[in-house]
Amino acid sequence: MHMYGNWRSAAAFRVRIALKLKGLAYEETFIDLDAGDQHKPDFRAINPQGAVPALFDGDGPPLTQSLAILDYLEETKGGQRLLPEDARERARSRSLAQLVACDTHPLYVPRVRNFLMEEYGLPKDRMMTFVRHAFTSGLTTLEKRLATEAGTGRFCQGDAVSHADLCLVSLWVGTGIFAVDTAPFPTVKRIAETCLAIPAFAEAHPLRQPGAPQG
Amino acid sequence: MHMYGNWRSAAAFRVRIALKLKGLAYEETFIDLDAGDQHKPDFRAINPQGAVPALFDGDGPPLTQSLAILDYLEETKGGQRLLPEDARERARSRSLAQLVACDTHPLYVPRVRNFLMEEYGLPKDRMMTFVRHAFTSGLTTLEKRLATEAGTGRFCQGDAVSHADLCLVSLWVGTGIFAVDTAPFPTVKRIAETCLAIPAFAEAHPLRQPGAPQG
Repeated sequence: MHMYGNWRSAAAFRVRIALKLKGLAYEETFIDLDAGDQHKPDFRAINPQGAVPALFDGDGPPLTQSLAILDYLEETKGGQRLLPEDARERARSRSLAQLVACDTHPLYVPRVRNFLMEEYGLPKDRMMTFVRHAFTSGLTTLEKRLATEAGTGRFCQGDAVSHADLCLVSLWVGTGIFAVDTAPFPTVKRIAETCLAIPAFAEAHPLRQPGAPQG
Repeated sequence: MHMYGNWRSAAAFRVRIALKLKGLAYEETFIDLDAGDQHKPDFRAINPQGAVPALFDGDGPPLTQSLAILDYLEETKGGQRLLPEDARERARSRSLAQLVACDTHPLYVPRVRNFLMEEYGLPKDRMMTFVRHAFTSGLTTLEKRLATEAGTGRFCQGDAVSHADLCLVSLWVGTGIFAVDTAPFPTVKRIAETCLAIPAFAEAHPLRQPGAPQG
């Protein structure tokens, strides 16, 4: 398989973890989002949205949207199972995943940050209150649910890694990049650290990919 | 089943369409989002995020997040099939659905609109440029993909209704509510109108629910 990603992309990170957990061979081409390579015609021909990840599996058209790719991998590939067998547990894992991937992450991507600065003339530090509010809102709900719902175990859903954990970790790593206060979120932290101790998560970490800042 | 929804909610609309297409009996309690009923303790106990929809199916805990609910209904209930059998086609329907439900809709929900006005002191008309930009960005990618990808048929994916169509229609109806120019999006329009001619879509329409403005 061949993935188009970026070191910093939370969405590419999720897919990279799944590929590694399932032991699937892949190559990754790193698109330079800061240089605007996602808007060049070559990449727009792959994904008209100009967003990573895009995954090629054989000769078919590219697969896009991280959660759709995760479901595709789950449905078509072997390796470690990343969704529970029980339909209600699966729905809970997906709901937690979407709390991150739908209701939180899309609010702080580059195109939103740039729009706020350009359209409203906000300096970067004032724009960042929007970003941190997005993180804090998402993390507050995530913490509340994980700390109070019976389904939570060693991981978001019971004692096995599932899609929710891939999304949780992708959000958690962002709190470092965007300097978000994580003190109020101990359950999120516990699960993130449990995940990041697993080699597939650690190897997929944004800061270990080409293009990431060193040291 | 029992759903907590709201007439205007795009996410509740998607689930309402699925319930009707599958012929599943349900009742809906309408949460008054303008009055802030989603923040009251009673509702926060159902969904700590304070968001609709939340769906009860029997005695289990509430199901949340519209796409997770759609997958749950697909996996556990009979009635009309709403995802293709082929894994790649399913991935494409989900990718189009997520383009709407992850990358577009979360940008214009009330909590984001209110934050922009309160944090940055933006008057409503200037805040609305953010909302319309979110719609236009999402619709532009959706139009490009639907107009050029081989998978598009009478509906988003081939000739059968799937999750992508439920999301497309939920976005389309929003263009009316938020006065978004739809002239550049003829393929989106064609599919939306094809869907809205189907009774389940028409009956689920926001403006036909209790609490919606009359006339």
